[in-house]
Parts: sequence; structure tokens; C-alpha cells
Amino acid sequence: MLIADGSKMLMIGDSVTDVGRARPVGRKQHDGLGNGYVKFFDAMLTSRYPERNFEILNMGISGNKVTDLETRWQTDVLDLNPNWLSIMIGINDVWRHYDSPCNDDLVDAHLYEKTYRTILDQVRSQLDGLILATPYFIEANRQDPMRIQMESYGSIVKQLAADFDAIFVDTQAAFDVFLEHKSSHYLAWDRIHPNGTGHTILSNAFLRAVQYEF
Amino acid sequence: MLIADGSKMLMIGDSVTDVGRARPVGRKQHDGLGNGYVKFFDAMLTSRYPERNFEILNMGISGNKVTDLETRWQTDVLDLNPNWLSIMIGINDVWRHYDSPCNDDLVDAHLYEKTYRTILDQVRSQLDGLILATPYFIEANRQDPMRIQMESYGSIVKQLAADFDAIFVDTQAAFDVFLEHKSSHYLAWDRIHPNGTGHTILSNAFLRAVQYEF
Amino acid sequence: MLIADGSKMLMIGDSVTDVGRARPVGRKQHDGLGNGYVKFFDAMLTSRYPERNFEILNMGISGNKVTDLETRWQTDVLDLNPNWLSIMIGINDVWRHYDSPCNDDLVDAHLYEKTYRTILDQVRSQLDGLILATPYFIEANRQDPMRIQMESYGSIVKQLAADFDAIFVDTQAAFDVFLEHKSSHYLAWDRIHPNGTGHTILSNAFLRAVQYEF
Amino acid sequence: MLIADGSKMLMIGDSVTDVGRARPVGRKQHDGLGNGYVKFFDAMLTSRYPERNFEILNMGISGNKVTDLETRWQTDVLDLNPNWLSIMIGINDVWRHYDSPCNDDLVDAHLYEKTYRTILDQVRSQLDGLILATPYFIEANRQDPMRIQMESYGSIVKQLAADFDAIFVDTQAAFDVFLEHKSSHYLAWDRIHPNGTGHTILSNAFLRAVQYEF
Amino acid sequence: MLIADGSKMLMIGDSVTDVGRARPVGRKQHDGLGNGYVKFFDAMLTSRYPERNFEILNMGISGNKVTDLETRWQTDVLDLNPNWLSIMIGINDVWRHYDSPCNDDLVDAHLYEKTYRTILDQVRSQLDGLILATPYFIEANRQDPMRIQMESYGSIVKQLAADFDAIFVDTQAAFDVFLEHKSSHYLAWDRIHPNGTGHTILSNAFLRAVQYEF
Amino acid sequence: MLIADGSKMLMIGDSVTDVGRARPVGRKQHDGLGNGYVKFFDAMLTSRYPERNFEILNMGISGNKVTDLETRWQTDVLDLNPNWLSIMIGINDVWRHYDSPCNDDLVDAHLYEKTYRTILDQVRSQLDGLILATPYFIEANRQDPMRIQMESYGSIVKQLAADFDAIFVDTQAAFDVFLEHKSSHYLAWDRIHPNGTGHTILSNAFLRAVQYEF
Amino acid sequence: MLIADGSKMLMIGDSVTDVGRARPVGRKQHDGLGNGYVKFFDAMLTSRYPERNFEILNMGISGNKVTDLETRWQTDVLDLNPNWLSIMIGINDVWRHYDSPCNDDLVDAHLYEKTYRTILDQVRSQLDGLILATPYFIEANRQDPMRIQMESYGSIVKQLAADFDAIFVDTQAAFDVFLEHKSSHYLAWDRIHPNGTGHTILSNAFLRAVQYEF
Amino acid sequence: MLIADGSKMLMIGDSVTDVGRARPVGRKQHDGLGNGYVKFFDAMLTSRYPERNFEILNMGISGNKVTDLETRWQTDVLDLNPNWLSIMIGINDVWRHYDSPCNDDLVDAHLYEKTYRTILDQVRSQLDGLILATPYFIEANRQDPMRIQMESYGSIVKQLAADFDAIFVDTQAAFDVFLEHKSSHYLAWDRIHPNGTGHTILSNAFLRAVQYEF
Repeated sequence: MLIADGSKMLMIGDSVTDVGRARPVGRKQHDGLGNGYVKFFDAMLTSRYPERNFEILNMGISGNKVTDLETRWQTDVLDLNPNWLSIMIGINDVWRHYDSPCNDDLVDAHLYEKTYRTILDQVRSQLDGLILATPYFIEANRQDPMRIQMESYGSIVKQLAADFDAIFVDTQAAFDVFLEHKSSHYLAWDRIHPNGTGHTILSNAFLRAVQYEF
Repeated sequence: MLIADGSKMLMIGDSVTDVGRARPVGRKQHDGLGNGYVKFFDAMLTSRYPERNFEILNMGISGNKVTDLETRWQTDVLDLNPNWLSIMIGINDVWRHYDSPCNDDLVDAHLYEKTYRTILDQVRSQLDGLILATPYFIEANRQDPMRIQMESYGSIVKQLAADFDAIFVDTQAAFDVFLEHKSSHYLAWDRIHPNGTGHTILSNAFLRAVQYEF
Repeated sequence: MLIADGSKMLMIGDSVTDVGRARPVGRKQHDGLGNGYVKFFDAMLTSRYPERNFEILNMGISGNKVTDLETRWQTDVLDLNPNWLSIMIGINDVWRHYDSPCNDDLVDAHLYEKTYRTILDQVRSQLDGLILATPYFIEANRQDPMRIQMESYGSIVKQLAADFDAIFVDTQAAFDVFLEHKSSHYLAWDRIHPNGTGHTILSNAFLRAVQYEF
Repeated sequence: MLIADGSKMLMIGDSVTDVGRARPVGRKQHDGLGNGYVKFFDAMLTSRYPERNFEILNMGISGNKVTDLETRWQTDVLDLNPNWLSIMIGINDVWRHYDSPCNDDLVDAHLYEKTYRTILDQVRSQLDGLILATPYFIEANRQDPMRIQMESYGSIVKQLAADFDAIFVDTQAAFDVFLEHKSSHYLAWDRIHPNGTGHTILSNAFLRAVQYEF
Repeated sequence: MLIADGSKMLMIGDSVTDVGRARPVGRKQHDGLGNGYVKFFDAMLTSRYPERNFEILNMGISGNKVTDLETRWQTDVLDLNPNWLSIMIGINDVWRHYDSPCNDDLVDAHLYEKTYRTILDQVRSQLDGLILATPYFIEANRQDPMRIQMESYGSIVKQLAADFDAIFVDTQAAFDVFLEHKSSHYLAWDRIHPNGTGHTILSNAFLRAVQYEF
Repeated sequence: MLIADGSKMLMIGDSVTDVGRARPVGRKQHDGLGNGYVKFFDAMLTSRYPERNFEILNMGISGNKVTDLETRWQTDVLDLNPNWLSIMIGINDVWRHYDSPCNDDLVDAHLYEKTYRTILDQVRSQLDGLILATPYFIEANRQDPMRIQMESYGSIVKQLAADFDAIFVDTQAAFDVFLEHKSSHYLAWDRIHPNGTGHTILSNAFLRAVQYEF
Repeated sequence: MLIADGSKMLMIGDSVTDVGRARPVGRKQHDGLGNGYVKFFDAMLTSRYPERNFEILNMGISGNKVTDLETRWQTDVLDLNPNWLSIMIGINDVWRHYDSPCNDDLVDAHLYEKTYRTILDQVRSQLDGLILATPYFIEANRQDPMRIQMESYGSIVKQLAADFDAIFVDTQAAFDVFLEHKSSHYLAWDRIHPNGTGHTILSNAFLRAVQYEF
Repeated sequence: MLIADGSKMLMIGDSVTDVGRARPVGRKQHDGLGNGYVKFFDAMLTSRYPERNFEILNMGISGNKVTDLETRWQTDVLDLNPNWLSIMIGINDVWRHYDSPCNDDLVDAHLYEKTYRTILDQVRSQLDGLILATPYFIEANRQDPMRIQMESYGSIVKQLAADFDAIFVDTQAAFDVFLEHKSSHYLAWDRIHPNGTGHTILSNAFLRAVQYEF
């Protein structure tokens, strides 16, 4: 397993990461990691490797786009001084084009990539490990316009992972395996916010990425 | 406009009809009609035709399938003695096949039609007017499995409307016009429960069905 | 219909506009437009013209008089940069003379007109469209002192509409049609705050003003 | 003052009597008399005549019409065995004709009188004192339809007071004195439910009726 | 009645005055005068003299001693610019000697008088009328130590009333009349905070002081 | 210490015993003994004698008089099968004569004694130990009418203790020692419901009665 | 993996199973499985085997002992007709000897085994699979009295698993592995109710028992 | 008894001291001392020595370590100017090593002693009396690692008591007497936060330290 003893890993993102985590910093104490994949990831790691000490921090905030991450990057990431970082951002950047097309702060692919690159530039050198996860849309129809756009943002994440020597987590692919057998309705009423099964798909994708041994 | 002075119209269905209506009977007094299409329909009618007296009752219950309507048909419809009745049921009958495929009380098309026919048999003769609305799925992709199944249940409603001399409201068609221009995300996060715009599409479909004059 | 694609319309007023809208800005997202005529107006427009993009903002605040609008005009109107604006103000300016005659901040007709003119001067040039709606009192008796005063403030609004090239909405007249058939008690317990039917009378008056096609 | 030492006086009516009184019986203990004229009446009596023992009971229920009093007459009046009784009922009997004209349980003047007479017949013989108060409508315009109907129901009360040897309290007249100087808006937003000033007008009318000495 | 048309009367004191009044200023609007003697006083005045306009303000704060009044005198009295003022303060100044004898901020008689005189000096010249009410202790035993001390503070109030040309209200005397017939338990569980009957004794004492005509 | 290993002691009374204990039975588990003398008594006993097992039950109910104990004696005492029992009842029996003199269910001394004797007859034979505590009134003035009556009821308790071979706890005497030095205000705002210091006076009186060794 | 497509698995136990599950039956829908090992077990299974349909039911109730299971066995197990069943019971049976030694309903080892055997006799024949899990105490000291007793109850479970052809889950052993490296404080403040890490240790033990493939 | 008339005693510590005390200062008035040993200590003292005046302040804050005391020493101790002071700190300093071994602000023995000495240096000269209480762990197994560490921190407290002429309270020893007979489960589910019995063990240890006479 890749994460060494004594690591502090910060996980940041949007509502899929947040899921009710504690403010201002989501920590394991007092059950402050929220009820999503971050909690499951922490529980699987800490139960399996009791001989190592990890500290997982959840810094997700519901509704965030990559531009929101940039705004709070200093206080919410750099000041907390992690040596591992995971980022899953982009769902709201895409989604707003569909549910709020009149908004004047839509994030197009160019701004998405540029902003994402900026925050990575600021943090990469201080990290032992970096995980970049794609945004996703739990929809089996590959011709769906929002899925197509989400995949294109995911491609940007894949390129960034290559450029910044990061571990790449393809969450869309993880959900697609499931969608071969059951409907998206089984995982998430709005195709975005997963239930326990959906969050486990996410946390297991992250666990595999760090070479977790069951 | 088809609804005559002195009419009592009962509108029944699932959560799309319910939307927080008062219990045990949703009446206009104390704002008990919920916050969905029933309220809008009542408000449009009563504001436009002040010279007539109507009483609209909302008897929707969240989560209901046609089999649930049958169970409460005596107390929730017959005992209230309406002379107009609208029914919009079937969304949950279909949806459960996708979000809860392991449930043992799924309603297939045969049971749907048979049960629907049974309740109509019990009530038709006492009505001056009957409105049957299709279930719907706010999804533009016509190949989506749940949409296909929803449309097939909608076809049953269309046949029942013909058989029982009812006014037919094609809610799926009403939403499809909108989906030519904007995404389903604009109307409903889960493609089922509409926001104000979506409920207005429904209420306007009902209003046109009773030959409302704007 | 007069409102062009891409418009941002701000609707401001008192409690009749507010009706529980979100703070600091009432937007369509998360159902933040309140439960009154603003919501109905938005729902009718957006459901009917899906090919256009509109953004409606609700900036009403309960209890406001025209002098309150002046105080918050910069932050609550000018800074939000709308190209359409609707104003319905004056009910509290008149009402306070009757329920709180001892108050020392009563707004007489002169102050009403002068203040109203001041805020219009500041905003008119940046607008593509301006709607000015009269205050109203849902009382059939045309000799009622408060109704008489309300109508005189309404006349000021009519003159301002002419002076500022605005669309004029006569809400008093819209209610009067209804009062020929039913009592004010049917619309509003206090003859000011409408129920759903009353708010629909208002929203339909606004819709007709912008040449809405049902 | 007419009420003798040791009396138990029960006051019954609608929301104007209720005003949040305790259930099932509104007593002075634990501040259970509500916040309306019953509380003020009790406080004025008991503070002025400490040498006498009175027990005042508040049995008002919001929304009640005379037919509702009849339904609960045995448990809520006869079983409590008062020797003084005051009744103020009729506002809802009239009001429903205006705010809910479609209701099928409207109480016309004939039913009002007949029902009222029935309950008085059952109780009169056991009472030392009986007070009958008119319903009222706080509206200065004597041509207002609801006021005219309210006064006609008040005339029935006046006749019943004569027939049953009761003290007659003309609440409409008490409010009319006030309305010569100030608007109804000063007393009650909906012209029915009074603020503290309005409830004091009522309690003072009752106090004068029992020959209270200030 | 002494209070002229157009007067603004401010009533200040401790919890007996406060009784849940609105913050920051207790006004009649929205029922902000609390549920004690201030509300009753206002209701009796305004119901009896509709031809005059009064504004009553409640500025009582629970737990206040005269030294607390001094602290907030500028903002809570002078800035509000009343032309009538009533003060009832001193209960807590005395009471703390008995329930919290270890407190280090006890107010002895000398400090009481000196502070009281200071605040009166600041305000007297701007007033048309001033009412000074004694503190009280609802205890029939005239040898009770706290009652003796309370009466001595009351004597200071009486002297101040003479020195500042104020109307003097002897609340202790008003309660003593009552205590000849019934126990203090009937009025107040703790002999300080009155129920409705007790507050009416207070409000009637104030009403008589301003020559109210019932 | 008198209470033997394995004892189950039930403590019953009014609000002074209750103090928020759990329903239907107040047990030590989940902090169900309330926040009064019962909790302190249990804590002192169990912390001092860990080598013994005691179970203390709190069955006090606020507002109870001895007649209320009789009503629930079977279910709340006999059915729970204690071998030790303490009773402190009588405060409300006396108090109601002063705060609610018009009540028709006042308990006079004769009824008090007779009822008390009845319940003791039913339970005495099954008990290893019985404690009877006087009611009290925390008032230093021995001429106070309510204190005089309270002491006379206390004398009845003393006689009953003698007749039924019970341990007698003179709570009035315990408070009187304190009142020689400090005011009743220090212990209880209403002279009945003690603060922590007052409850400790009670629990220490009970502890001394069972020969507790500090 | 042992659990076949179409299975209905019921998991029963005490608060460690319950963890806030829905009533009367804890189902996956509306997140009704609680926040403990049952939820994690379901999420891992359903995310890994989307091609199979499982229904997991959580029927744990906080505080239960094996005697409580017996009481509700018919309604809470047999009537729900599962084909798989897991039981983890015994913690409270042991714990009460330590936190409530005075209780008169303690369950000794003999009663534990006898009752456990009775409920297994009633259900075994209808099951395709049965899982019996030991109770546990998260305490590293093997000489701790409560741990010793817990292990002896666990031995009974092991024997029952053999007798009833059940899959045996040794939860104590699963925790002991962890305790070699970190303190019990890291998993559970009271050494019984686990945090997320502790519940994951449990769910992973159950998953291994059914031959889950990560 | 050592504490003289007129003393102000401040008691500071962590959650065992806090137990819901009032903010910003926990005083006896309005029941602000919390529900732990501080309240019991105050109640025992004040009930036993009514001829003296004491003021007890509770300044405990949940979760505090000695480093937290240092941070707030000026405002929470020195500014309040006590002449008696008790400190019980160290539980969290030790506990965090076991429940949160990954935290980066753990307090080792050296820092514990150094910080403790610093705050004592600042306050000792102004005190008439100082009480230093050990931290504790309610665990009978003397080989338990956390107990061993807790005792070593307790030894530091003992040395500090000697160095600063303080009264030493050995809370661990007080609990150990109890643990010879009953389990820690009887006193505290997590072996730290006591129930009423446990808090009484603490308060009695403090009472004996000040030579309380029962």
C-alpha cells in the first residue's frame, strides 16, 4: 500500500466529497469525515493497517467548482500542509450548464483546465502523493450531452494526472461497470449524489489506486 | 371552460400531486393544496372564473402506486363524493423496477392496467368529468429503458381514457416540447419531481384539457 | 413576448413580492424566488419559452416602503445590473397611516413621488424594460379611506410610468374584476397579502403586460 | 358587581375566545386562559375583588361555529358545571360565506338561531348568570355585506338574550365607538382577530355588563 | 387623563417591565410590548382614548438594577426622545442581597439613590410627564427583612418623585390592599414576578396615576 | 448504615422528588433519577458503599398530593415490590389553599391523614424499612399562615411515623437550621423548589436518617 | 461469494447492529440500514455484485439481549421470511453484569445458550445460510473480567455455529488483530460501540465469511 | 473547614469539570455550575456552612489540556481574581495519545510539567488556598498502558503540589477504593466521564481535602 506511515492526506472536492463533514476542517475525531467515500476510504485504510498512522482530512464543500477550489486553496490546502492530496472536482463545472444555463459564472473547459493547472502548480512540489479523480455522471447512455461534456472534462483530468505525475482515478469507468447490470436509479436519484453503494464504488476505486490489500 | 359552477374536483396521485398537501384532506383553506400543479391549477381556475364556485381537493400521497390508490379508494375518493376527478399515477409503478429491483411488490403492466380499470369502474358513473394523465419521465433520450417502460404505461392510460370517456392529458408530451430546448436538469434533479417551472408545465396541460381561457 | 433571450429581470417590492424569497438574493436555484407572484411569473415564462434564457431575481423585502427601496437601491438593484426591472411599492407607505398612525416615519404622497422619481432616475438608462405596478387594497368599497389613498398613490405610479417610458400594471384594477364576483375574504384575510389565487391575479397581470402568449 | 363569591364562570366561543388557552380546560393556573379578553376579564375581576373567589374557565376553540358548540356542549359546558356562562359565537358562521363560499357546511341564519336556542335550552336552568355577546366585524362601512350579515346574526343574539333572561353584550357597538376615531387596521389586520387594544375593548364590554367598579 | 395627544411614553425597568418585549425597542407593532403591565396599560389607554395618538415604548430588561439603567440611559432613553417616562426599578437592587449575598456588585441604598438621581437629572427637563414607581415585594409580613429593605428603597423613590416633580406610584401599597384578602401565592410564585392578576394591579395603579377614566 | 445489601428502595413524592426523573420508572441507568435529592442520595450511598448493591427508584410526580399517590399506589409502588420506601408528600396539599383557593379538590388535614394512612396500611408489611418525610415551606417567619399549616401537616407525618414504625425525617427542621443564617431566597425562588444547595440539605437529612457514615 | 442472486438476508442484533436503522424494518431504501456494519456490508456486496439482486434487512435494536430477540422472533424474523440470517448478540447479556449489577434480569451463560438455541431451532430449517457472530469487548487485556466472560459467551456461539451448521464469525479475534497495534480508544470510547474504523473491521469479517472477492 | 468566609474559589479543568456549566463564567446563579463535582462540592459546602459566604466559579472547558489552560489563564483565572483555586487537568493530555495518536499537538510529560508550572507561577502568590488534583483513569488493571501514563502525570501533579504548597487530591486513589468492589462500567462508560456516583467520589475527595465536616 502506497501511503506511508505518518502521512497526512487531504481530500478535497464538492458535495460528493463533503457529505456533511465537520467545519472548518473535517477530521476523523467526532465523526467529522462526513458520510461518503472519504469516511469509507479512511475506515478501510485504518482498519487494515493499524501499524501505520494516517490522518485523513476532508475539505470538500458542496457546490464547489474548480474556481472555488482556487479561491480557498491557500487556507484549505496549503496551510494544512498535507503530504498526500486527492482532488475530485468538475461535476458542478459541467452540471451548471444544464440546470442553470442562465448563470453568468459557468466554467468552460478552457477555464477548467487553466484553473486546475494553477492550483496543481502551487501544491505539487510539497506532496509525496497526488490523486486526481475524474468527475462523473451516472448515466448509461453514452450519447447523453452532459455525459459527453463530463467525459471531456475527465479527459482533461487524465492529461493533468500525466503532466503532474499523479495517480489517476477514473470514477466514470468505475460506475460504468456497475451500469452494465443495474440502473443509475439504484445508485443515485439525481445521477450525481450516490447512496452507500455508490460511495463504496468511489472509495474502492481510490483504495485500488493506492494499492490497498483487502 | 368545461368545469361547471358548483363542481367539486378531486385530484389524486403520487408525490408529484402531493407536494406537502394537508392531511387528511388537502383543501384550499389554510393553503392545504400543496405546492405543486394542483395549487397552480386551482389558482389559475379560481382567479379566472370568480363567477363560478369550485372546490378542488388534493388527495395525492407520496410514493403511491396504482395499487395504493385501490387500497384507499373508498375513503379517499368515493366517500368525498367529487363530480370531477383527475388521476395521475404510474411513476412509482415503473420507477421501482429501476431503483429497487429487489422489491417483491413491483407492479407490472398487467397489474397496472387491471387495478387502474378496477378503480375506474367503481367511480366513473358518479362523475361529470374524468381526467386521466399519463405518468412521465423527464428524459430526452427516447431509448432510455425507464422512459420506454413509462411510455408503455402511458399508452395504457390513453386506452383507459378512451374506454372510460375521459379527458386524456399527455404529460410526457408536454415535457417533451420543453426538452427540445433545455435539459431535464433545468426542471427536476431526479427527472421526476419538478420545480415550479415543471409543475407549471403540468398545470397548464391540465388547464388546456379543461379548455381554460387565459 | 417582450423579454428577449438573455435578459436578467429584477423584481423588487415589499412583502407581497418577498413571500419568503432567499437572502441575500432570491434566485430560481434552490427554490429561492419565494411563494408569490414572482415565482408564478418565472414559472409561466420559463415553461412557455424554453428556447430563451431568462434570469429572474426577487429582491422584495417585507415591510418596505419606497424610502426603504431608496436606502438599498445601490446594493440591491444597481449592483446586480439587471436589464429589466419591475417595481411594486406603496402598500406600506399607505397602510402605516391606518395601522400605526402614531409612527413618525409616515410617507406622504409628496415624499412617495419624490423618492420614487429619484430611484427611477438612477436606473432607467441602463434598462431595456421597466414595469411599474400600482399598490392595491383588496376592498370592494370604493369609498374606503385607505382604498382612496391607495388609488391616489397608484395614480402617481401611473404618471411615473408615463414619464419614464415604463409598462404600467394596474394591480388594483386586476383585483377589482375579481371583486365583482367574490369577496376580498376569498383572496386575502387582511386584504393585502394574497393567497395563491390572489398571487396568480398579480402574476397574470404582469404576464399580460409583457405580452405573454398562453 | 354581579358575580357572587364562589362562582365558576365558563366562557366559550371561537378563536377570539381561545387565543392559545390550555387544553382540555383553560384555567388560570399555569397561565391557561389564553392571551385574549378572557385573561383580561379574569385579571380585572380578581385584582379588583380579592375578597371573593372566582374561577374562570376558557373553553373557546378556534374556528368554531355554533354547530361546533352544540357538538361539544355536554363535555365542554354541562359536565364542567358552571353557574355563570358567557357565549360569543357567530363570527365563523358568517365569515365562511365570504372566504369559503364553496364549503358545504355553511351556517345560515335559521340554523344559527335554532342551534343556539337548543344549547341555551339545555343549560339555562342551572345558571345564576348568562351573558350573550354578539359576533362582530371591525369594519366602519355599514354597507359592507359581511358587516350587514354579521349584524343580522347579532340581532338574533339580542333576541335570544331577551328570551333567556341573559345579559346582552353588544361587541359590535363597542368597536363602533372606536372606529369613529381610528381605522380598523389599528385593532386587527383581518378585522376579526384583535390585538391587545381590541381585546381590551371586548373585556371592558364584558366588565361593564357585570357592573364592574373600576 | 393627563397624557396629551401625540405623546411618546417610554416605560423602563426590570423583568417586571420586560416580560418578553421586542428588541431592541419594544413597540406596539407586532405585539412587541411584552405580556405585562406595559401591554395592559397601553391597551387600556388606546382603547379608551381613540381620539388621541399615543406611542408607548417598553424598554425594560430582565435582571436590571438602577446601575444597569445608568449604563444604557443614553441609547435606551435619551436617544428615543420620549416626552413621558415611567421608571420602576429597585427590585433586583434589593433582591440580590438575599439570593446572592456573595455577589460583589450589590447596590446599597446610597448607591441606589445617587444613581437614580443622576439619570433623572439627565432627562427631566425634556419631559412633559414623569412617573416614578416604587419597587415592591409581594409579602404580607411587614417584618420580613427583604420587605423592610424594599420599603426603604421605596421611600427613596417617593423622595425623588417629590424632588423631580414626578407622579408617584406606590406599587407596594397597591399589592398590600390585595394581600389583606388573599395570599401572595395567588399573585406570584416567587413574590416578584406577577401573573395576569398581579400585572393588572400594576397597570391599574399606573392608570389611576394618569387619571384614567374607566 | 441501615440499608442492607440487595435492597430496592423506592422514593415517591411530588415535584421536589421528581425533578425530571425518567418515565415510567426513574432508574439510575441513563441518568433517570432526576436532578434532585434522590440523585444525590443515590450517589452518596453508592459511592460510599460499593461493596453493597442498592437499587434506588424515583417515582415522584410533579404536582402530586397524597390523593394522587393513592390513585397510583398499586402500579407505582406495590407492583414494583420495593423493600425500602420513602415518602415525602404534602406540599401541594397545603400550597393549593394559597395559590388556588377556588379549586374544588383541596385536601384538608383530615383527608390528608386518612389517605396517607390508607396507603401505608397497604404497603407496610412488605417493607424492611420505611422513611416518612415532612412537607416543608422554606420561610423563616414562623407566623406565616402557610408555614403554620405546613407544620400541622408535618405533625401528622410525625404521628404516622410513630404509628407505622417508620424513620422520621423532619425536612422543615433541616431547612430551619439554614434559615438562621441566610435567606430563603438563597435556596428557592418560590420557597418550595430548592436549588442544588437545598436538595443537598434534603439528601443529607435522608442520609443521616439511614445512619450514613461520611 | 456464497449469497446467491435473489437472496433476502436479515441481520439482527443489538445497538452495534442498529446504529439508527429505520423502523419498523431497516431497508436500503431511504438510507434505512443505519450507519454501522450492516450498511457497509450491504454497500460492499451490492457495489461488487451488480449482476445479483440482494435485499439486506437490518433488525437490530439497541440494548437487546438474547432474551429480547426471543420475544420479537416471530414478528421481526420469521414473519419477514429471510433465506439468510446473521445474528450478533450477547454484548448486553454480559455488560449488564458490570454496569448494572443490581438489575434483576441479568442473563447468565446457561440462559444465554438455552434461549439462543431456542430461536435457532425455530428458524434454521428455512434458511439457505446462517451466520453467527460472537459478542466482543474491545479490550487488549485478556485478564479483564468482562472480556473473560465475553469470550465464554463467544465460545457458546462457536458451539452453536457447529451444532446448527452456521458460518462462524469471530468478531473478538478480528478486533484483537487491531489491538496489537493501536489502543481500544482509537476504535470505541466505551470499548463497545465502534466508530467507522471499528464497524469496517466488523463488516470485513462478515464479508470474508461469505467469501467476498475484493 | 479551611475555606474562610468571603472566599471566591475558582475551579478549572476539562470536561469532567465543565459538565455543561454556563458561559462565559459558570456561577451558582441560574444553575450555572454544571452537573458535576463542582456543583456537588458547592452544594455540600453552602448547605453545611450557611454562616459563611462562598462564591464558587466553574471555569472548566471540555477537551482542555494543560496547554489550553495556559492560553486562557489571564482571562479565565487571573482576571476573575479568586483567592482559592482548584485545578484538575491532564486527562486529555494523556488520552489523546491513545484515541488520536496521529494528532500533532500531543502533550508529553515534559511539556505537561513545564506548562503546569508556568501557570502556577503566575497565580500562586495571590491565593489563600490552592488545590491540585491528579488526572485519573477509571480502570482497575494497573498494567493498562494508559493508566500507567496517567499515573505518571499524576506523580507530576503530586510534585507540583509539594513545590507550590498546595493541597493534593489523589482522584485516582479515590476511584481505586471503589474499583475494589465494583467495575468501572458502573461509574463511567468510557472510564473517564463519571455518572453521579463518580462525580460524588470526586466531590467528596475535594471536600475531605478542605476538611469538610459532614
